[in-house]
Amino acid sequence: MFNFSIHARDGAARAGSFSTPHGVLNTPVFAPVGTQATVKAVTPAQLQELDAQLVLANTYHLFLRPGDELIANLGGLHQIMQWPRPILTDSGGFQVFSLAKMRKIDADGVTFRSHIDGSLRRLTPEDSIRIQENLGADIIMAFDECADPSNAAYAREAMQRTHLWAQRSLAAKTRADQALFGIVQGGIFPDLREESAKFISSLDLPGNAIGGLSVGESKTDMYRSIEVVNAILPIEKPRYLMGVGTPEDLIQGVLRGVDIFDCVLPTRLARHASAMTRDGRLNLLNAAFSADPNPIDAECSCYTCRHFSRAYLRHLLNAKEMLAATLLSIHNLHTMLQLARDLRQAIIDGQLQNFADTALERMKSRPHAGREPFGKAGKP
Amino acid sequence: MFNFSIHARDGAARAGSFSTPHGVLNTPVFAPVGTQATVKAVTPAQLQELDAQLVLANTYHLFLRPGDELIANLGGLHQIMQWPRPILTDSGGFQVFSLAKMRKIDADGVTFRSHIDGSLRRLTPEDSIRIQENLGADIIMAFDECADPSNAAYAREAMQRTHLWAQRSLAAKTRADQALFGIVQGGIFPDLREESAKFISSLDLPGNAIGGLSVGESKTDMYRSIEVVNAILPIEKPRYLMGVGTPEDLIQGVLRGVDIFDCVLPTRLARHASAMTRDGRLNLLNAAFSADPNPIDAECSCYTCRHFSRAYLRHLLNAKEMLAATLLSIHNLHTMLQLARDLRQAIIDGQLQNFADTALERMKSRPHAGREPFGKAGKP
Repeated sequence: MFNFSIHARDGAARAGSFSTPHGVLNTPVFAPVGTQATVKAVTPAQLQELDAQLVLANTYHLFLRPGDELIANLGGLHQIMQWPRPILTDSGGFQVFSLAKMRKIDADGVTFRSHIDGSLRRLTPEDSIRIQENLGADIIMAFDECADPSNAAYAREAMQRTHLWAQRSLAAKTRADQALFGIVQGGIFPDLREESAKFISSLDLPGNAIGGLSVGESKTDMYRSIEVVNAILPIEKPRYLMGVGTPEDLIQGVLRGVDIFDCVLPTRLARHASAMTRDGRLNLLNAAFSADPNPIDAECSCYTCRHFSRAYLRHLLNAKEMLAATLLSIHNLHTMLQLARDLRQAIIDGQLQNFADTALERMKSRPHAGREPFGKAGKP
Repeated sequence: MFNFSIHARDGAARAGSFSTPHGVLNTPVFAPVGTQATVKAVTPAQLQELDAQLVLANTYHLFLRPGDELIANLGGLHQIMQWPRPILTDSGGFQVFSLAKMRKIDADGVTFRSHIDGSLRRLTPEDSIRIQENLGADIIMAFDECADPSNAAYAREAMQRTHLWAQRSLAAKTRADQALFGIVQGGIFPDLREESAKFISSLDLPGNAIGGLSVGESKTDMYRSIEVVNAILPIEKPRYLMGVGTPEDLIQGVLRGVDIFDCVLPTRLARHASAMTRDGRLNLLNAAFSADPNPIDAECSCYTCRHFSRAYLRHLLNAKEMLAATLLSIHNLHTMLQLARDLRQAIIDGQLQNFADTALERMKSRPHAGREPFGKAGKP
């Protein structure tokens, strides 16, 4: 269990497989996000048809509603969601810092007000692990603090707390059927990232994550931070870049040795009328598509592109029909899942740099009607 | 084409099959409603998995948005919706009277303001047929006027206009691959219903419909009106009860010789947290279900009941997740589609009265936590 085998390497990139109680993850892998125990607007059957391997769920949200103990009593996340494949839960840390109405950090944990009902709640590393054990995901995360990426003093303080909390998370863990991953923090500061990568590596966990990126820093800072960290993280363990990202970020991350990604971007864009293509985004509300009989992408093999025209999708969006979000989510998720599969194959074929150059070049193509280049990744 | 074969009869009820360019309808049949060229919250693949035979789409809505000419240019409704089985479009009459912001009726047609943008629009019988020919459904409806069911003078006037408009609809029709059904009106007045049934029958169309019911009249008036009309409508042609209804109405309609039904009720209730069961409705927001590990109905074979608990569905509803509407729509549609299949089988087995008695008795069972008896049908 939790064995990571590397089948092929190409530069810093690797094609591997990570075994979990609910099956093997073939990496690089992209995880759709099911914040509230559902990937928005799609059924688990549709997710399986998309051949998604891994789904992320958010500890913060599920702790607040419907409650982790209720989920445990109902048999855990896999059972209630009816998702038979691997699940990863985050630690709740990121959401406390990005969503809660108020928060007070002390050495022991965080006190905050629920964004749902304003109630006063508290999370410590021990709480986070207890909640994640109740949820029952295959991969769980150490409780961490995600600091403002450009404030060096705060970044150091948050990193140090994250290290102590990682040790406490490990100590609190009781279930053998869950893999605990540690999280490297340190903002955009190479010295902090280096220090954090060394510390987290020293815990000898079954996998390691890079947190606190794609939160407003530049692409240069983001990619350099990944490089600094991955030069230190053990090569024989999976590396998870949290909350990232765009197709471009996926390619850049894989080139730098990342194995696991997750992001709300595909489903969030879908709910905002944006289709992700290999060339960039298509805003399907654009009048240019009003009579367009073509699919979003003629080369795409997803259910949406095999069946429906841009004109029909635009009609559904105009008419505020839920089917629009479903069909666009299916397409956007397919785009990201297929990109991860293509990256894996390119590594196995020893063609990663060629593949990456071609794919990145396409994404730079001149924007046209209703098409805009990818922006920064959304976060849950 | 448009041949109606009756395979079995049981009292006034019949089990038949009606051939259309997109396949055979096995009757009694219930049609899910796809008002804006989509059955709300479900994909056509999910509808096929539910084995829906027939989908209704609304001429009024599609005329206003995205426009019938655009749909014709894109290959028609079957093509844009990717629904390969039969489609029925209504005439637009009912929606003009129930949805438009303003309407002025004259002998020639109706002028009204769009409920979407307030623009001034006009529909005559010739317009309705032209639009329905552009949409391309297998079954199209004569343009009709649905009057206040309790006003005798207006009901007579509207009925007379409906008769003239039915003749003009027939004269305007040009496509041989569409079956035009006439609509019997006459409110709750037996003499008017009789007169209307005789007139519409005299047009010798491939099928006949009963309009203007389930619009506020009593169940007694509704069922009596069906009896009066079906005593006159030709036995060898399919009979369509428009916009009806509840499970109880389906049973009562079949007992009185109705073959085709449609209603928004299953999908509308789904979007309002209500699950339809053979015993009545379940309001899944009820706190009684917060930790309930059971499916909506343990005897139900739909995707939702095979996989998901009431507690999970309640969580999705509380969290305002779109998946709730999808899963409840699948269940509610299954309930109505299965009821129609069961009614057909009961007719074939010569057991209709037994089946109906048992089913109606279950629906009378004492309401309990979160369960209420079926009310009146919604209309699009």
